[in-house]
Amino acid sequence: MRGGPGRTRYSQSERTANVLTVTSPSSAPAPRQPNTALFTDQYELTMLQAALHSGAAHRRSVFEAFARRLPDGRRYGVTAGTGRLLEALASFRFGDDQLGYLSDKSIVDDRTLDWLAGFSFTGDIFGYAEGEAYFPNSPILIVESTFAEACILETLVLSVLNHDSAIASAASRMTSAAAGRPCIEMGSRRTHEESAVAASRAAIIGGFASTSNLEAGRRYGVPTVGTAAHSFTLLHDTERQAFEAQVQALGRGTSLLVDTYDVEQGVRTAVEVAGPELGAVRLDSGDLVTQARWVRELLDDLGNTNTRIVVTSDLDEFAIGLLASAPVDAYGVGTSLVTGSGAPTAGMVYKLVSREDNNGDFVSVAKAAKNKASVGGRKYALRRLDENGKATAEVVGISASPSDDGNDRPLLQQLVKGGEVLPGWTGPEGVQRAALRHSESVAELPESVHRLQRGEPAIPTEYEEILP
Amino acid sequence: MRGGPGRTRYSQSERTANVLTVTSPSSAPAPRQPNTALFTDQYELTMLQAALHSGAAHRRSVFEAFARRLPDGRRYGVTAGTGRLLEALASFRFGDDQLGYLSDKSIVDDRTLDWLAGFSFTGDIFGYAEGEAYFPNSPILIVESTFAEACILETLVLSVLNHDSAIASAASRMTSAAAGRPCIEMGSRRTHEESAVAASRAAIIGGFASTSNLEAGRRYGVPTVGTAAHSFTLLHDTERQAFEAQVQALGRGTSLLVDTYDVEQGVRTAVEVAGPELGAVRLDSGDLVTQARWVRELLDDLGNTNTRIVVTSDLDEFAIGLLASAPVDAYGVGTSLVTGSGAPTAGMVYKLVSREDNNGDFVSVAKAAKNKASVGGRKYALRRLDENGKATAEVVGISASPSDDGNDRPLLQQLVKGGEVLPGWTGPEGVQRAALRHSESVAELPESVHRLQRGEPAIPTEYEEILP
Repeated sequence: MRGGPGRTRYSQSERTANVLTVTSPSSAPAPRQPNTALFTDQYELTMLQAALHSGAAHRRSVFEAFARRLPDGRRYGVTAGTGRLLEALASFRFGDDQLGYLSDKSIVDDRTLDWLAGFSFTGDIFGYAEGEAYFPNSPILIVESTFAEACILETLVLSVLNHDSAIASAASRMTSAAAGRPCIEMGSRRTHEESAVAASRAAIIGGFASTSNLEAGRRYGVPTVGTAAHSFTLLHDTERQAFEAQVQALGRGTSLLVDTYDVEQGVRTAVEVAGPELGAVRLDSGDLVTQARWVRELLDDLGNTNTRIVVTSDLDEFAIGLLASAPVDAYGVGTSLVTGSGAPTAGMVYKLVSREDNNGDFVSVAKAAKNKASVGGRKYALRRLDENGKATAEVVGISASPSDDGNDRPLLQQLVKGGEVLPGWTGPEGVQRAALRHSESVAELPESVHRLQRGEPAIPTEYEEILP
Repeated sequence: MRGGPGRTRYSQSERTANVLTVTSPSSAPAPRQPNTALFTDQYELTMLQAALHSGAAHRRSVFEAFARRLPDGRRYGVTAGTGRLLEALASFRFGDDQLGYLSDKSIVDDRTLDWLAGFSFTGDIFGYAEGEAYFPNSPILIVESTFAEACILETLVLSVLNHDSAIASAASRMTSAAAGRPCIEMGSRRTHEESAVAASRAAIIGGFASTSNLEAGRRYGVPTVGTAAHSFTLLHDTERQAFEAQVQALGRGTSLLVDTYDVEQGVRTAVEVAGPELGAVRLDSGDLVTQARWVRELLDDLGNTNTRIVVTSDLDEFAIGLLASAPVDAYGVGTSLVTGSGAPTAGMVYKLVSREDNNGDFVSVAKAAKNKASVGGRKYALRRLDENGKATAEVVGISASPSDDGNDRPLLQQLVKGGEVLPGWTGPEGVQRAALRHSESVAELPESVHRLQRGEPAIPTEYEEILP
């Protein structure tokens, strides 16, 4: 089957070099952040005020971010946002704008304002490496500091992890379904303009080859792509004039959008204008499986055997799976990616699990409410691997690291030490490392994770409590 | 039924003054924006390059943002994001950072870079007032300028309108189901940190009384609220100590979270600590209908007849509807609001509908593809009202304003004139006006819009083509 998964004419590198105008990753520094201090729910600051009043604000505390469950039927989640969170942490400072607002509105008292004015995070943060697969109750992030310092980070931590992990988890399913064919992130227009940048970044972590979002390219050095829309064709008096303008301006290797009027005529005109070097045609409507098949035949009959087919119409992981047998060379994915393909938020929570008592000893704490019970205590985590290196369980130790059976892989990495973000997690480097971690982490999971059907988590989460 | 919808003990103003710590709206200026120029899909700039090459870039053009359909079963949508879009437009400039990136990555050629360096939008923008209800094919935003100027705004326009309208549309259903009881936006942690700010803003437009998001309070002057979380109770050695600390720091009018351990004991302790002036108790888990009933009885038996009940556990419009008969005084809504309650994006598209030809005349244009057909031509719109002022149809004129039957209300407002944003749409004032417009617009719709069940759009969209 020409153009199917077994097709070997084009290597992955040829594809990313030629299908669309692709820019390469850069080694730009970590992006500067706007002030992030008020990405905060008011109760964090009123709690701080009350805890400063009672004195408990200074108790050493452990907060944990985790998801009680995966989205309905999902086999695994993908940790994402860690690098962005660490970037945002550096800008989590209460400056004049923030303090002035809190003071003008009498949201907190002067003593609390004074504390906030002097705040910068001085604790430790541990977490799953960005890109790592996670499961129910995986301790994805652990913040160790005073209650005061950890409490006020709650909303920022959850906003970043919940959003980015939701997108990366969806991206991972899509790239799994694409089975090696490149996926292109094109969903910016379907989500908030800043979410779009984070979604592009998360998509790359989840295995996408490139994005249409330029700000993501600028901030994180990820590859960007793009050619033309229907409006470009409609702007010109004829489709031929539009194609000629595009080929003259962008080269024969460009991707021409052939479905503005009649697809067959569009393909013929594209080939006439660009010749055998035409990079790709893009199909954005109709029955893509059938259409890709006859467009492939038509291109080949016209001598354009090297011209690729890119499809881009409301794709999700299921549509990508259905296109596996069609001669498609790349998938452009929009809406379903940036909305998490049915799970737009990862459902992580941030809970106090341990804190100092009056004697300076740590005590485990947990809410007792029936439908939202949590497991108290500082967590440690290993991925249990069998002799073939395949994951068999997520082992979570309470208050101590679980016993390692020899093949196990520790999951918690130190991200922040004494308030200082450790190198390697942020900026373009962080994204590249996270994409690699994602790829390695998913390869370690049982084959069942590639099933799109609903099911149980790919491996069970097991608690191991070391009694003192 | 005490505490039900007919309960008149607390006026709305008493509620917002007492239930939680509420800050009042400010008259702060429109917020400054970071640079927004690269919230752009790469193809907009490569199209620009090709159109500059062909000369067609300078053709006068009309782009239109509209939704082909409402989310599955919805009766109406709510236009939101207009003010934010106009704020972002002012920062849509290509500065050194943006041009340097585009140049370094060779995304566009020098001629295009020169054009971008000099760019500021000089055209006109018309649109539905923010807060206005919309229906399938309502022409929500119309951009009139050269192709070049309008083309590069596509992603920004759609990101802002799609996100904010999705949230405001969900918010509107929730406030409708709440039937006058205040709804509090608490979803920041479930969405990207900047989306959270926009979601708070959109929730207020959709009728919410307040938000927990402090940055939304600072930027847009919307009322903010917040008291305490379970971690605050767990931080202290006993629930009583936590309540005492909170009441001492925040006053007796505060809201105490009573479900960390045992709800009945929590309520009793709360009343003992705060006395009859206790502002509210918050329930965040369990069967809220049953629980609210016996908590109300318990509070009343203890003499706390003025203490309100706030509920906050995974509420959506359906859960709010089910709680209508329970003695609940306010609803805190999180996840389902910020994820659009099943419809996280509004599905709007931005299409070229008309452009100049070689004679300088405008010609209507539209893509012909089968499943994504658009109606070409510049649109005008009226809401047709009956003699009682109730809406009966969305009337869209093609290339000319539809005939007004006397009661009709024109829907398109000028937002930008010759590149200048007209006053009143942006900043805190824009949000206040939009919330009022939402309230008036929904009041005008047929009663059927308040049904939560799936159905057809509340009014039909009718085209009226005036032949020249």
